[in-house]
Amino acid sequence: MKTIDVCLSPDLMHLYAVEGKSVVVVDILRATSSMVTGFAHGVSGIYPVAKLEDCRAMKAKGYLIAGEREGEKVPDFDLGNSPFEYMAPELTGKLIALTTTNGTQAIAKSLGAAEIIIGAFLNLSAVAEHLIKSNNDILIICAGWKGKVNLEDTVFAGALVDKLTGKFSLGCDAPLAARHLYTCAKGDLIGFLNESSHVKRLNKLNIHDDMRFCCTIDKYKVVPVLKDGLLVV
Amino acid sequence: MKTIDVCLSPDLMHLYAVEGKSVVVVDILRATSSMVTGFAHGVSGIYPVAKLEDCRAMKAKGYLIAGEREGEKVPDFDLGNSPFEYMAPELTGKLIALTTTNGTQAIAKSLGAAEIIIGAFLNLSAVAEHLIKSNNDILIICAGWKGKVNLEDTVFAGALVDKLTGKFSLGCDAPLAARHLYTCAKGDLIGFLNESSHVKRLNKLNIHDDMRFCCTIDKYKVVPVLKDGLLVV
Repeated sequence: MKTIDVCLSPDLMHLYAVEGKSVVVVDILRATSSMVTGFAHGVSGIYPVAKLEDCRAMKAKGYLIAGEREGEKVPDFDLGNSPFEYMAPELTGKLIALTTTNGTQAIAKSLGAAEIIIGAFLNLSAVAEHLIKSNNDILIICAGWKGKVNLEDTVFAGALVDKLTGKFSLGCDAPLAARHLYTCAKGDLIGFLNESSHVKRLNKLNIHDDMRFCCTIDKYKVVPVLKDGLLVV
Repeated sequence: MKTIDVCLSPDLMHLYAVEGKSVVVVDILRATSSMVTGFAHGVSGIYPVAKLEDCRAMKAKGYLIAGEREGEKVPDFDLGNSPFEYMAPELTGKLIALTTTNGTQAIAKSLGAAEIIIGAFLNLSAVAEHLIKSNNDILIICAGWKGKVNLEDTVFAGALVDKLTGKFSLGCDAPLAARHLYTCAKGDLIGFLNESSHVKRLNKLNIHDDMRFCCTIDKYKVVPVLKDGLLVV
């Protein structure tokens, strides 16, 4: 039986191998939720970059540029990091270059995997079905917050582990702990995540609407996959 | 209000400051449980060292030498890492040099804190009372397993956070997640931790008796504190 494992923070990635694995990158609030929303609304590709200036440089190549720092949209950028911005009809067929505090860095640390896919509550079941078809060992990488473990990404990891239990064996205690947390959370996901430090930190930024939306399970069926540095579906 | 925070792995210690804080080092299976048991049975001091050869060298200075690697006692050492070995009457008044896979390394990374104390389920309430008296910011450091997060140390952290909730505010999502896990676990702590990868890994080493003992809450009142490199009570 193949294994499923969870890396709770990008700062623990040195402990996990990615070679031959299906890696699922998760940054529920809000990078991967926004990516999934964008693809569900017809975006043709998202180019994740680590640095602000590299993102800005993509404007000249015809990309829309998108990103946040400390939870706020970068002033001269086309888009921030709220999933509601990724529903606009004018995004259909467009390419977006995206930089975020945590999500992009998690993708960068996953390079070398058999495949890198983007997970969120919004596409939970689609991701699970994709992973069952791929049938590789799985590593879920939680983007966290500046290296620290966060609640929302861990609970998502637990939800995905829960969906795949029985088909994959657990790699260490992290998937077990994540699944327990999901069990605590699933009766009232929004109430549970309202306690998280990220929600409190972004309280002033209309995070509650975003958070409620990001907690919608299986709204979309898209599974973004990284191909030659570009996320596509 | 002072804060309580949890570092889920020694490999995340670069994200946390220790200066001015009361640091609680926890390695439930089995280093800190054995330390607490030893002090409760009259051991006069425990000298934690990282390397096997440094531990062995302490023999010439009159120390008993103790330690494990991969969960097994080092063959030429006086003691291993089972708490039952730390109950022997002949240990009264003795000094022990101890090296373990994970616990000692967590102590080494805590140097510079206002105080470093040793926590286990065995002395949970005594540790909580000590921390309330000290009234510093608190950082609980889980020893984990070779850098990975483990279930038993995280659940202990959650139990201690639970005891101190209301008196200290939570520093990030890690204490919140740990407290949720403790809430899941507390009805059947042994059953919950039986699932942990460490228990499965050490299955052949009579870990079950050790584990049951290490899950005994408030058996002892001793609070080991590090003074000039030596743990004392």
